[in-house]
Amino acid sequence: MLRFLAIFLIAAMPASAQDSIVIKDIYNYALTKSRAYEQLDYLCNKIGHRLTGTTNAQKAVEWAQKELIKAGADSVWLQPCKVDYWDRGEKESGWMIVDNERTNINICALGGSIATAKEGLEAGIIEIKDFEDLEKLDKEFIAGKIVFINRVMNPANFNPFTSYGECGMLRYNGAKEVARYGAVGVIVRSLTVDITDYPHTGAMGYVDSIPKIPACAVSTRDAEKLSKAIRSGRKVKAGFKQSCKNNGEVISYNVIAEIRGREYPSEIIIAGAHLDSWDLAQGAHDNGTGVVQSMDLISTYRALNLTPKRTIRCVLFMNEENGGRGSKAYAAAADSLKENHIAAVESDRGGFTPSGFIFKGDSLKIGYAKELKSLLEKYSLRNWETGYAGTDIGNLEKQGTLLIGYSPDPQRYFDIHHNGADTFDKVSKRELVLGSASIASMVWLISEHGLNKKPEVK
Amino acid sequence: MLRFLAIFLIAAMPASAQDSIVIKDIYNYALTKSRAYEQLDYLCNKIGHRLTGTTNAQKAVEWAQKELIKAGADSVWLQPCKVDYWDRGEKESGWMIVDNERTNINICALGGSIATAKEGLEAGIIEIKDFEDLEKLDKEFIAGKIVFINRVMNPANFNPFTSYGECGMLRYNGAKEVARYGAVGVIVRSLTVDITDYPHTGAMGYVDSIPKIPACAVSTRDAEKLSKAIRSGRKVKAGFKQSCKNNGEVISYNVIAEIRGREYPSEIIIAGAHLDSWDLAQGAHDNGTGVVQSMDLISTYRALNLTPKRTIRCVLFMNEENGGRGSKAYAAAADSLKENHIAAVESDRGGFTPSGFIFKGDSLKIGYAKELKSLLEKYSLRNWETGYAGTDIGNLEKQGTLLIGYSPDPQRYFDIHHNGADTFDKVSKRELVLGSASIASMVWLISEHGLNKKPEVK
Repeated sequence: MLRFLAIFLIAAMPASAQDSIVIKDIYNYALTKSRAYEQLDYLCNKIGHRLTGTTNAQKAVEWAQKELIKAGADSVWLQPCKVDYWDRGEKESGWMIVDNERTNINICALGGSIATAKEGLEAGIIEIKDFEDLEKLDKEFIAGKIVFINRVMNPANFNPFTSYGECGMLRYNGAKEVARYGAVGVIVRSLTVDITDYPHTGAMGYVDSIPKIPACAVSTRDAEKLSKAIRSGRKVKAGFKQSCKNNGEVISYNVIAEIRGREYPSEIIIAGAHLDSWDLAQGAHDNGTGVVQSMDLISTYRALNLTPKRTIRCVLFMNEENGGRGSKAYAAAADSLKENHIAAVESDRGGFTPSGFIFKGDSLKIGYAKELKSLLEKYSLRNWETGYAGTDIGNLEKQGTLLIGYSPDPQRYFDIHHNGADTFDKVSKRELVLGSASIASMVWLISEHGLNKKPEVK
Repeated sequence: MLRFLAIFLIAAMPASAQDSIVIKDIYNYALTKSRAYEQLDYLCNKIGHRLTGTTNAQKAVEWAQKELIKAGADSVWLQPCKVDYWDRGEKESGWMIVDNERTNINICALGGSIATAKEGLEAGIIEIKDFEDLEKLDKEFIAGKIVFINRVMNPANFNPFTSYGECGMLRYNGAKEVARYGAVGVIVRSLTVDITDYPHTGAMGYVDSIPKIPACAVSTRDAEKLSKAIRSGRKVKAGFKQSCKNNGEVISYNVIAEIRGREYPSEIIIAGAHLDSWDLAQGAHDNGTGVVQSMDLISTYRALNLTPKRTIRCVLFMNEENGGRGSKAYAAAADSLKENHIAAVESDRGGFTPSGFIFKGDSLKIGYAKELKSLLEKYSLRNWETGYAGTDIGNLEKQGTLLIGYSPDPQRYFDIHHNGADTFDKVSKRELVLGSASIASMVWLISEHGLNKKPEVK
């Protein structure tokens, strides 16, 4: 079917295709022929979550490789990287005890945390809003207790990513910051603006110089409950039990597919996303949608018989969630092979309706890229800004690559981020495939015009 | 709580508030204090669907009136209108018979249709794509058969409302167009781009000069099945059974709440939505979200102690779905009272993330309104276009009112439109309340600046 379409389009494509016509073809393909939604269904419902180091992650690697070969890439390869294999163990449990009355609370281990003792950890509890609060307290008061970091993610910011940025370090650094003061455990309020029962996981880190203590996240609804109990002046203890552990290093892979450029093959443009996911749901929006959108780059160009001037790659990074080792491996290989990446697009903000792009890099190149806006804004890509473009492409910045974050609508992202709600049914097919088209269009335009001079869009 | 907030803000509000500061306050209120989501929960889950003429519609009228009084409007009133009370009766059933093998198909009566005979209607079936196909067929071939209008809503249009516009008349006029040729029933493919099991209802009409025949919609998945059977060349019959009927005219109401203008009270700006809904789900996105967003106009201004220069109203129209009698009654009253409506905003495209506004009216006024864009585009209101602004405000056009359709992201709308999926759980709280803020901001700016000259935004 695709083969037939490709043959048809070779005949139909004008010798010197106008940018706007190619873009229209790309959107038409996405909305009528893309298999991204069916691929996402498979990734979520047949493979499931893909935490780094797990059998599922390996299955996802093999599946993606096969799909990219089927899509017709010039070459598809696996790029090895060493990763830490942390696993959650048994389902966790959490509780609070108010004047001897025990209630369960919804918690989950933070990624990278150590386990509690087999019977769990139980202690008196102290609530803080941020690390500065610790300084106001006696060290002896904190010692031996569990610290509850209850920072509400600000709902008033228009973009919830701003609010996430304000709180992310509380989760990542919570265990070490409170352990300095002798705390024996940390419970972090889940990072979402909504009040729900889902605990949200996410990465945390230790340093060797500070004792390692168990760290978990509590659902926002139970954070409210716990805080209310603490503020009531009644005697409150809390506890949790988790059996997670780090199983050491294993080998995993980035999956890479390439179409060689027809004029400047040594100039490379990538579109990428991370293949691994957290393990509490299916990694649908985070980051299955980005995976299938990046794979669609290859399928779309092949189906439309579009051979780009420059080399384009789909890069599926391993281990974004808890280590970023895939990203480092990709950048290291690019350096040692002296590859020239002129631009890199990342889709890791969910598969929601298109909104725009976020650029990071040389201001002249950003200016040239922004000249392309007139071609894309009618497809709802109206918000072109500068800022943080993405984690996995970030390691390419030092080679002067223009980093481009694909930016869909952000309003629903933290409903599903790192929690049990990130399932296939939360994804809209049209919103997903419009993301594929957004990325394929942007990569195509940069591939055609380069980033060395102001593009003359046709 | 709101009272306390209002008092606080009287003190805090500067004597001459800048537009941008008021807008920020409005968004802040929406994202942190709005009760729109809780109100929608009540409307959907406690009242439920609200088909014109039903007890539920009356409950919704009384509930909205109370909520608007609580919100602190200067006046709240009910505006009577005569409406037709059509009801669906028993749950419908549909089937197809291929070489004597019978399979059920998912159908629902179109709004306004007559019933079939008690035992249902069964006949041979003919498939057409549009009314032009009828002319190619022998009248005798059509006579006595059921016509199946199988027009696929074009998925390739970026905006699915465009595709809906291309097909809407097939549903509305289907029964009369095929009855001209002697058909005994009509089955219309549901108007959605997705393939699902939900049949989508919607209004249809008869004329006295053509025989009235029963009309229903079939789910897109079953439309595909039925079409495949017909094209297979096997002997196909189809049937459906429905007991819907028109119970004649009853009295219902528009619900109106007003805050009097502080400088030009005779100039009126309304924000409105329809309080009635179809009866297959809860009328969440269509149009509960618009209802609570319009009610939020009153709550927001009161909570922030914003008294507009011009009179503003929340207007909840009755009977948009199957008659539009509320809209006509409102416009007729406005004419007879010689009220001057300078602008009217309608929210009837779902409670999805904000995208922009659609203007209809005098081009000079549209130009003045568009000057306000610089204040609102950072809140994701980037798409300001001209076109069809809305059904309920449409009857004000003849008095020169600037019509403004609030335009959220359109991609998911036809997933829920007029079918069983239009339930509360499909609504995102943040997307909903950002709509409230979009509307309250636009109304505020027009109220402050008027539409007689280029606004000097501060």
